[in-house]
Amino acid sequence: MTAEEFRSQLDERIADAESIIKSFLPKEEGYQKLILEAMNYSVLAGGKRLRPIFMKESAKLFGDMKLLSPFMAAIEMIHTYSLVHDDLPAMDNDELRRGRKTTWKVYGEDQGILAGDGLLNFSMETALKAYESAENLEDHVRIAKALQVLYKKSGVYGMVGGQCVDVYLEGAKTPMDMDTLMFIHKNKTAALIEASMMVGAILAGADDGAVAKIEKCAYNIGIAFQIRDDILDVIGTGEELGKPIGSDAGNEKQTYVDIKGIDESEKDVEAMSKEATEILESLPGDHEFLKELILSLVDRRK
Amino acid sequence: MTAEEFRSQLDERIADAESIIKSFLPKEEGYQKLILEAMNYSVLAGGKRLRPIFMKESAKLFGDMKLLSPFMAAIEMIHTYSLVHDDLPAMDNDELRRGRKTTWKVYGEDQGILAGDGLLNFSMETALKAYESAENLEDHVRIAKALQVLYKKSGVYGMVGGQCVDVYLEGAKTPMDMDTLMFIHKNKTAALIEASMMVGAILAGADDGAVAKIEKCAYNIGIAFQIRDDILDVIGTGEELGKPIGSDAGNEKQTYVDIKGIDESEKDVEAMSKEATEILESLPGDHEFLKELILSLVDRRK
Repeated sequence: MTAEEFRSQLDERIADAESIIKSFLPKEEGYQKLILEAMNYSVLAGGKRLRPIFMKESAKLFGDMKLLSPFMAAIEMIHTYSLVHDDLPAMDNDELRRGRKTTWKVYGEDQGILAGDGLLNFSMETALKAYESAENLEDHVRIAKALQVLYKKSGVYGMVGGQCVDVYLEGAKTPMDMDTLMFIHKNKTAALIEASMMVGAILAGADDGAVAKIEKCAYNIGIAFQIRDDILDVIGTGEELGKPIGSDAGNEKQTYVDIKGIDESEKDVEAMSKEATEILESLPGDHEFLKELILSLVDRRK
Repeated sequence: MTAEEFRSQLDERIADAESIIKSFLPKEEGYQKLILEAMNYSVLAGGKRLRPIFMKESAKLFGDMKLLSPFMAAIEMIHTYSLVHDDLPAMDNDELRRGRKTTWKVYGEDQGILAGDGLLNFSMETALKAYESAENLEDHVRIAKALQVLYKKSGVYGMVGGQCVDVYLEGAKTPMDMDTLMFIHKNKTAALIEASMMVGAILAGADDGAVAKIEKCAYNIGIAFQIRDDILDVIGTGEELGKPIGSDAGNEKQTYVDIKGIDESEKDVEAMSKEATEILESLPGDHEFLKELILSLVDRRK
């Protein structure tokens, strides 16, 4: 696949994910119009829609797509609510995200908290719409499993848990050991990628063995992506990264590269992405686009 | 039923609900111990556990109890997360609740936000445990319906929606008309009572007609409870209420009593609680305790 072919296939999939996400957003009407606007403003702030794309590509490997769309929208709502709450003054205090004002900056801090709550809650209402396409007990069981994976990986034993430890250690200025760092990366970054790919596979009919492989593949992608981020922070140029070099170092926040060094980190990224593609090759279906997508994420220069 | 009999039956039910809620709380261990502690601290702050009790009493009317317990814990987690976020500095800025420091006051504002997020997310993980007791398609369908009701009533078309409008109007100091006030009461107060009773009925096997009756009954209880609150705020004594008389009036927040006057408000409470008990009487099972519970809530002097 040439770089142009990949770019064009990626754009197509982003457009598809955007259109599915939009179809599940609430209408901005009624007494509570303000919070519905704030929720839609947050979701429509852009982004590459990587999680819904990973979900759909994983589902394609196993074939049955009829339960999928509500979960694609739901995982993007979960990702978005986490950003809305991260940006709050009591958390990262960010006023801009992707060049636009953050949700709390536009709607106020109180409505920012509520919009995040509303989005997490609405993700559940949205995912539950998959039941409208359930035809038999097997479909019900798949939805139940998908819900269990999605909310475990996004909660205190996943994303929220990682976020809690990250925020706590930033405040405490405690030096970070490798185990703690990996806990944060696994939960804050990898968990939602794991959820995306596992939910796609489960809904499409993968058996438990295949879902376990998918989980390991997604873990590798998430961690390799995160280490690449840390490497770029050290060796990248300000222009390519769009942020000051070494900004995390300035904050005294220990990274993977600080602990292992650049060379070892590069080797780890390569080993993890190699393992991820090997796992994919052991699964049915066409994985060419997924493999290119992984490469684009772990080999990126910005 | 004498006052003592009611009190003793209520205490028994509170103890039962407490024990069910506790059995679903997370163990305080692992890297993310801090947020698990903050979540448990919030849930264990006390309270009458009215929502789980309403859920179980409604289920008893229809009989099948095997799917119920996880949902009892889940609705208390939802109620609790809403209090944790309400108390935040950017919302009501409360440092005390039921005589104890609020969650953010103990764990910090950032962990307070995350603990609320963690609880809402964990409510889903908890409710989904009902699948462990599902034996057939009928059980799966009941759980699906219960999840749909629970998260609709707790989200932007329920509790969060009411909260959004309440917070917005408080900030804007806009005078409140009756329609807006009823929107807030229906969503902020009644919606979770509706969810409690409907979920109990659905899981226990009630048909759609009975669930619709239960919804109306719960709506009446929620609104009557709220109007009673407004009346007490005007006529109560500081000692009985445990807060300064007319504190809402001091905040220029318009209440039901401001709009309709005390006498009309008293009549409305009576009519609504009468209708609620009449609906109960049209349903199967033993409603004696539920009727006493309603009376205790709408006739209370504090």
